[in-house]
Amino acid sequence: MAAQQPKVSLTGIKPTGEPHLGNYIGAIRPSLELTSTYESIYFIADYHALTSIRDRRELASYTRSVAATWITLGLDPARTVFYRQSDVPEIFELSWVLSCVTGKGLMNRAHAYKAARDRNAESGVADLDAGINMGLFNYPILMAVDILIMNTDVVPVGQDQSQHVEYAADIAGSFNHLFGDVFSLRIPEGIYPAGISARALPGTDGRKMSKSYKNTIPLFAPEKQLRKLIRGIVSDSTPVEQPKDPDTSAAFALFENFATPEAIKEMRTRLEQGGTGWGELKNALFETVNAWLSPLREQYEALVAPGSELDAILAAGAEQARDRARPVLQGVRRAVGIASL
Amino acid sequence: MAAQQPKVSLTGIKPTGEPHLGNYIGAIRPSLELTSTYESIYFIADYHALTSIRDRRELASYTRSVAATWITLGLDPARTVFYRQSDVPEIFELSWVLSCVTGKGLMNRAHAYKAARDRNAESGVADLDAGINMGLFNYPILMAVDILIMNTDVVPVGQDQSQHVEYAADIAGSFNHLFGDVFSLRIPEGIYPAGISARALPGTDGRKMSKSYKNTIPLFAPEKQLRKLIRGIVSDSTPVEQPKDPDTSAAFALFENFATPEAIKEMRTRLEQGGTGWGELKNALFETVNAWLSPLREQYEALVAPGSELDAILAAGAEQARDRARPVLQGVRRAVGIASL
Repeated sequence: MAAQQPKVSLTGIKPTGEPHLGNYIGAIRPSLELTSTYESIYFIADYHALTSIRDRRELASYTRSVAATWITLGLDPARTVFYRQSDVPEIFELSWVLSCVTGKGLMNRAHAYKAARDRNAESGVADLDAGINMGLFNYPILMAVDILIMNTDVVPVGQDQSQHVEYAADIAGSFNHLFGDVFSLRIPEGIYPAGISARALPGTDGRKMSKSYKNTIPLFAPEKQLRKLIRGIVSDSTPVEQPKDPDTSAAFALFENFATPEAIKEMRTRLEQGGTGWGELKNALFETVNAWLSPLREQYEALVAPGSELDAILAAGAEQARDRARPVLQGVRRAVGIASL
Repeated sequence: MAAQQPKVSLTGIKPTGEPHLGNYIGAIRPSLELTSTYESIYFIADYHALTSIRDRRELASYTRSVAATWITLGLDPARTVFYRQSDVPEIFELSWVLSCVTGKGLMNRAHAYKAARDRNAESGVADLDAGINMGLFNYPILMAVDILIMNTDVVPVGQDQSQHVEYAADIAGSFNHLFGDVFSLRIPEGIYPAGISARALPGTDGRKMSKSYKNTIPLFAPEKQLRKLIRGIVSDSTPVEQPKDPDTSAAFALFENFATPEAIKEMRTRLEQGGTGWGELKNALFETVNAWLSPLREQYEALVAPGSELDAILAAGAEQARDRARPVLQGVRRAVGIASL
């Protein structure tokens, strides 16, 4: 029997902030674990980020730091395809074609758009479309293109993001219905790896770690800042000597994600017995996280610096991505009757 | 004093049917007359046509016949830029960027979209967005890109199409407001040449000549078919000997557009006096139109044939168009923070 071709898995990374510990646990680590099972493709969705970022320095710097972060944490550009969305112009042409086969009703029902309308309604804004740009309204189409143009089989997502993959399958189906079975061999499916988005890591204020709450702990903050942020995690004022419930503590929740099982067990016992303060827990958390990140920090700093080898890595990834995208777009052009030069 | 740079004029041609006499009078002739005043750019909006054409043979054949028609009728590719929209990928990337600065409310108010909703409402369809695709909804953005990416100064349009140019100016203004004055030097304006869309040429059934009424007289129909179509133009049953009112006649309205002033005057007198039948008018109309088109028909047939020099003309036009588009897109990429390889 012939060996089976591994399925193609696609992961998009939206560069809307400095990567933080929550990104690592909820996205980077579980996504990188899939490389042993799938032929993995990763891309930085810089043009998706443009629906919300209006500062060129921010967009450029987040794009670079996200790329440097994933490589530092184990993405191997020699074994995976890794590119910036904006380096693949075929994506935007296909996006126009697929918009012509996508019903407006489908977009009306998209979660992100509906959430934006709901926020307007809650704030008492009469025009529910106020402040909503066409990038946000169109972005399920662009996402479908990201998926379809790479001949993707599976898209690892959290359960709350399954609509994106369903839409890609819907749109591919509409195209096939109108113009013939161009996308018939690969209708993409969502897969839901245990780690992805399942666990919401708490931030420094105890709420879910998220850029919008300004409570994140950046992965590659300098050591001093890392210590300061971890020391600043909220905790209650139970005195050192009293027993504590580790499961009410944001710092302990973080510790559970980065320490060894033995260290976690020991810390749990010490907190429950009393005699160990939250400060001691935070010190242990800092030491654990810093021991992991210290050797990586240098590599990250080298990659993120302007003119580093990151440029060559992304340029090579763009070539690979375009090599995959071109025949898909050509097939679509032929099917709709657009002549090729 | 230095000579003033001529302004740049842009004309888009949507290939949604075989070019007919009505297109010549209402669009081709007045548009070609502008080449003496402006630096003229023409493009075939094949990807716009995809919002409604779902047959690849139709789209390919209309695109080719429209291109061959304009060249046959006087468009000089050596003096103007002439290209297919689908040969300029920069258009689609810029389209994504500008969608991110375009409020959805602007699209909600676009004439073509509102007309489609009105048709649903009149037909009693409950979902007003039924049957409306995202290509139609997005197309004012693509049209803005067509205009802005060529550094257009003026767009010759009929009065009913002024919204497209206003939208392009609006969208350029939104971009400038958010990201700096990238489009500041050229905010496009509509101009309204007397000929464009002003006169609705009647078709064979007396209504406005339009593909949707199936009443057109194709420009390059074979002679036999041309005669048959002209003979079939509706006319009343006034007997030959009686006086007739030329201004109630579709054939006379056509005659007025193609014959010399002397011939028109003479024919008017003969019809008003009586003794001249509608059949004679139609024969004169056929002879006039055929005398004009006969020498052109051969040139058209040669151009429209597969593998003709049309391919090289369009390829050269695409290069010129991309040379204009690239620096505009690069300026936009820099302004929003998208890195360039």
